[in-house]
Amino acid sequence: MIDVQKQNDTREIDIQKVGVKDVEIPLIIQRKFDENQVVYAKARMSVSLPKHYKGTHMSRFIEILNEYREKNILGIDIKSMLKLMQERLDAKSSYLRFDFKYFIEKEAPVSKMKSLMSYDCYFEGTLDGDDYKFYLGAKVPVTTLCPCSKEISEYGAHNQRALAKIKISYDENEHIWLEDLIDMVESEGSSPLYPLLKRQDEKYVTEHAYENPKFVEDIIRDVVLKFKENKKINCYEVEIEAMESIHNHNAWAYQKSV
Amino acid sequence: MIDVQKQNDTREIDIQKVGVKDVEIPLIIQRKFDENQVVYAKARMSVSLPKHYKGTHMSRFIEILNEYREKNILGIDIKSMLKLMQERLDAKSSYLRFDFKYFIEKEAPVSKMKSLMSYDCYFEGTLDGDDYKFYLGAKVPVTTLCPCSKEISEYGAHNQRALAKIKISYDENEHIWLEDLIDMVESEGSSPLYPLLKRQDEKYVTEHAYENPKFVEDIIRDVVLKFKENKKINCYEVEIEAMESIHNHNAWAYQKSV
Amino acid sequence: MIDVQKQNDTREIDIQKVGVKDVEIPLIIQRKFDENQVVYAKARMSVSLPKHYKGTHMSRFIEILNEYREKNILGIDIKSMLKLMQERLDAKSSYLRFDFKYFIEKEAPVSKMKSLMSYDCYFEGTLDGDDYKFYLGAKVPVTTLCPCSKEISEYGAHNQRALAKIKISYDENEHIWLEDLIDMVESEGSSPLYPLLKRQDEKYVTEHAYENPKFVEDIIRDVVLKFKENKKINCYEVEIEAMESIHNHNAWAYQKSV
Amino acid sequence: MIDVQKQNDTREIDIQKVGVKDVEIPLIIQRKFDENQVVYAKARMSVSLPKHYKGTHMSRFIEILNEYREKNILGIDIKSMLKLMQERLDAKSSYLRFDFKYFIEKEAPVSKMKSLMSYDCYFEGTLDGDDYKFYLGAKVPVTTLCPCSKEISEYGAHNQRALAKIKISYDENEHIWLEDLIDMVESEGSSPLYPLLKRQDEKYVTEHAYENPKFVEDIIRDVVLKFKENKKINCYEVEIEAMESIHNHNAWAYQKSV
Repeated sequence: MIDVQKQNDTREIDIQKVGVKDVEIPLIIQRKFDENQVVYAKARMSVSLPKHYKGTHMSRFIEILNEYREKNILGIDIKSMLKLMQERLDAKSSYLRFDFKYFIEKEAPVSKMKSLMSYDCYFEGTLDGDDYKFYLGAKVPVTTLCPCSKEISEYGAHNQRALAKIKISYDENEHIWLEDLIDMVESEGSSPLYPLLKRQDEKYVTEHAYENPKFVEDIIRDVVLKFKENKKINCYEVEIEAMESIHNHNAWAYQKSV
Repeated sequence: MIDVQKQNDTREIDIQKVGVKDVEIPLIIQRKFDENQVVYAKARMSVSLPKHYKGTHMSRFIEILNEYREKNILGIDIKSMLKLMQERLDAKSSYLRFDFKYFIEKEAPVSKMKSLMSYDCYFEGTLDGDDYKFYLGAKVPVTTLCPCSKEISEYGAHNQRALAKIKISYDENEHIWLEDLIDMVESEGSSPLYPLLKRQDEKYVTEHAYENPKFVEDIIRDVVLKFKENKKINCYEVEIEAMESIHNHNAWAYQKSV
Repeated sequence: MIDVQKQNDTREIDIQKVGVKDVEIPLIIQRKFDENQVVYAKARMSVSLPKHYKGTHMSRFIEILNEYREKNILGIDIKSMLKLMQERLDAKSSYLRFDFKYFIEKEAPVSKMKSLMSYDCYFEGTLDGDDYKFYLGAKVPVTTLCPCSKEISEYGAHNQRALAKIKISYDENEHIWLEDLIDMVESEGSSPLYPLLKRQDEKYVTEHAYENPKFVEDIIRDVVLKFKENKKINCYEVEIEAMESIHNHNAWAYQKSV
Repeated sequence: MIDVQKQNDTREIDIQKVGVKDVEIPLIIQRKFDENQVVYAKARMSVSLPKHYKGTHMSRFIEILNEYREKNILGIDIKSMLKLMQERLDAKSSYLRFDFKYFIEKEAPVSKMKSLMSYDCYFEGTLDGDDYKFYLGAKVPVTTLCPCSKEISEYGAHNQRALAKIKISYDENEHIWLEDLIDMVESEGSSPLYPLLKRQDEKYVTEHAYENPKFVEDIIRDVVLKFKENKKINCYEVEIEAMESIHNHNAWAYQKSV
C-alpha cells in the first residue's frame, strides 16, 4: 500500500506541531504518600513535520501511548516518551500533554474526618532537539472573602468559590510533588475547600475565611511571592478567577514570570 | 434523483423524534418593555416518523427556520411553526426548542445605576395531532447564604452563587413574560445578582443576604409556593444548584409538579 | 451547636430530591474480563425531605461515599448504598447516579493490534420505600455514512462521527455487562470507531462503512430491535446524534420504550 | 466609605492583568454587507495594577461596557475603549476581548438557496502605554476528506467535520472583514459546510470533497500560504482539529508566525 503521508510536499512549509488531541487513556501516577494512583487522562501529542513530507503517521502516537500506559508517569518518563516520539516519527521536536484528575486525601480542620478531594492537573513537556522542558499544572479551588464587602458592611461579607490555575517549571534534576504545589496555593485563599465538613468544621471554616479576607489581587500576589522564594521553581504562570456570589461574572487576575 | 428517505422501511418501528440539533440562528423575541430583542438561539427541531418511511427530510427543518427568522417569536408563533413542521414533513407530531440568552436591564439597589443582565432561557413546544403544549424555561442565578453557617459562627456566613433552573407551562390563551418569571425566582434567593454594583450597593447586597439566609431547600419551597399560587401556571419543574464556597461540589434540590 | 436543618418547617412542602451534585470520587468497577477497573466518577446523590424538616444533612452523603469508595460497585452495591442513604438521612426515597469513563480493550479489524477505547458510562439507581430501580447508561461513538449521499453521488459519501446515548433497565436478579451493552450498539453503526488503526485497518474500515450506509433513523431502529429482542431488558431510551460533516449542526433521533 | 482597593500595598508586586471575565453583553458589529449585526458577546477586560495599590475598581469595567454597548464596535472602538480603561482605572496597560457568534449568509452551491451560518469569532486588543495591538479571531468549520483513506480504499474515504481556529493581526490603518477572513479559510477545506443543502447540493458537496482530499497538514499549509501572501496580515496563528470519523480522538495541527 502507498504511504501517502511520506509523499513529497512542495509547499515549503515546516509545520510546528502535528499530532493527536483528546486521546483518552488511564495512567499510573506516582504519589507523594501511599501507593501510586490510577488516573484517567486526556492526552495531546505532536511532533514537528519537515517541509518535504506531506503528513505525519498519527497511529504511531497511539502505539507509543499504549506502550507507556502500564508504567509510572513522572517527569523522567515524559522525557523518554518525547524522545521516543522524535525517533519513531523522525521529528526534530516533540510535544506532550496529559490532563488528569488527581485525588488527595484531606482532613477536616476540627473533626479531622478524612475525605478525598479532586484537582484538575496536567503534565506538559517539550523536547526540541536535546532541549527538554517540563511543566506541572493544577487548578486549585479556594474560598475568597471580599475585603471591601467586609469593611463597608455592618455584618457579613460576600464570599465565593474561586479557581487558581497555576503552571510551573523546574529543573530536570529537581522534583516538586503535585501535593506540595497544590498546598502552596490552597493555603493562600481566604480558606481551603473540603469535601467533608461536619458542623464544628463549618464553624471553623466560616470564621477563618471572615478573619482572612482576600481579593483575587491578594491571592495572586501571595502565590507569586511563594513561587519567587522557592529556589526550585524556574518560571510560573498564575491565574485566579472568582465566581463572585453577587455578580454573574467573574473577578480575574493573571501573572506570568518574566 | 432518487428520494432515499422516502423508500419503504420494513422494520415496523415508528420513530418518536427525528430531526436536527444545535442549529444556530438569530431570533427576534418580544419583550415586556421596550423594543423587541434580537437573540442568538440554538434550535432543536424534530418530527415523528411513521414506520413505512426510511428517513425524514432534514433540510426542510432549516428551510422553516429561515422563513421564521425575520418574525417575532412568541408562544403563538411556536405553534404555527410546529404546525408547518407537521405539514411539510407529513408527520403526526412535532417538537421544537429554542435556547437563547435574554438580556434584562437591572437597577442597582441603592445607586440605581442601570446595567444589562443575561439569562439562559428557552421556549419549548410540542404538537401531537392538535394537542399543543408550550413550556417556558430560564436559568436564574441568585446568592444563597447558608443559615447553618450563620447560626453556628461567631461572625460571617458562607455564601455563593447558585443557579435556579425553572420550567413552567401555561394555557394557550394565557401569557407569562420572561421578565416576570425571572423576577418570581430572583426575589427568593438570599439576594439577587447584579452586573453593576457601586460601593453603597455592595454594602446593601451583603447585609441583605446576611439578613436573609436560605438553604437550597428554602428557595425551592418558596419558588414552588409562588408557582402554586399563580393561577396561570399549569405545571412546573424547579432545580436549584449552589456552587458551595466551602466545598468543591454543589448542593442540589429538585421538585416537579405532579 | 444548634441543628438548623432539623428545625421545623411550616411551608407544608415535601421536597422530592435534595442532596449533592458533582462530587468527584475514584470508584472500583467490576469488569467482564480481567481485573477490576479504577474509574474516576462524578456522583449525584439525593433523598426526599419530609415537609416538617427545614433541611437535609449534606455531609452524610459524602460520608457514605467515602465508606463505599474502597468497594466494588455493581448493581447490588448501588442498592445497598441507596438503603444506607435512606437510613442515615431518615428518608422515604433515595437517588444515586455515578458518571464515569470506562475503558475497554479493542482489537483493530485486520492488524489485530490492541488499544484502549473510553466510553462515558453511568450507573443510576432509585429506591422508593422498597421499590428499587437500576439503570445502566453509556455513550457509544460510531461512524455513520449517509445512504442518500452515497446513492446520489458518482463517488464518495459523506460520513461522520456520531454519538449513541443509551439507557436501559433490567431486573434486579439479572445482569448486563457494560461491555455487552456497548457492543450491541457499536455493531449497528456504519462502522465502529477504534483508537488505533494501521493502514490495512483504515482500508477495511473505510470500505466497510461505505458498504453499510446508515441514517440516524436506521441506527435507532436497529438498536431498538435488539433491545426489544433481549429478554433481560425491561425498558430503554436511545438517542443518536451525528456531527454531520457537511453541516455545522447535528442530525438527531430519539426513542423511548413505552 | 473607605476605599479598600486604594489602600497601600507593601508586597512590591505589580500585577500584569486584573479585571473581569465572562461579562455577557449584546454588541453591535459592523458587517461587510447589509446592516449592522447585533451579537451576544462575552467580554474579558483587564488592566495592569501598580504595586502600591491593593486592588482595582472592578465596577468601572462594567460602567465602560455599558457606555459602549449602544455603539458600533470596530477596531477603532476597541482602541478607544482600551484608552478609556487606562484613564478611568489609572493604569499603564489595558486588555480587552469580546467573544461572539457572528452570522453570515451562505448560498448552497447548486440550488443557490440561502441560509445563515454562525461562526465563533473574537476581537482582542491590548494597549500598553501608546502601543496598540488588535487581533481578529474566528473558528471556521470545514470538511476534511482523508487522502490516505481515499488512496488505499477500493471505494469511499473517511471524512469529517474539522474546526480551523485562526487569529490574525493587521496594522491599525488597515482593515480585514470577518467575512473575508472566514472565506480565506473555508475555501481551503475539502469542502465548506452549509446549513441548508438540497439533494443536488449534497451530491455536489460529496463529490467535491472526494475530488479534493486533505489532511489537517494540507489545510494548515494552504491557509498559512494565503496568510503569508496577504500584505495586510502582520502575524497569524492557525490550529486545525478534525473530529475523525474513524477514531474517538482528533487529528490536530498548529502553526504560529515567527
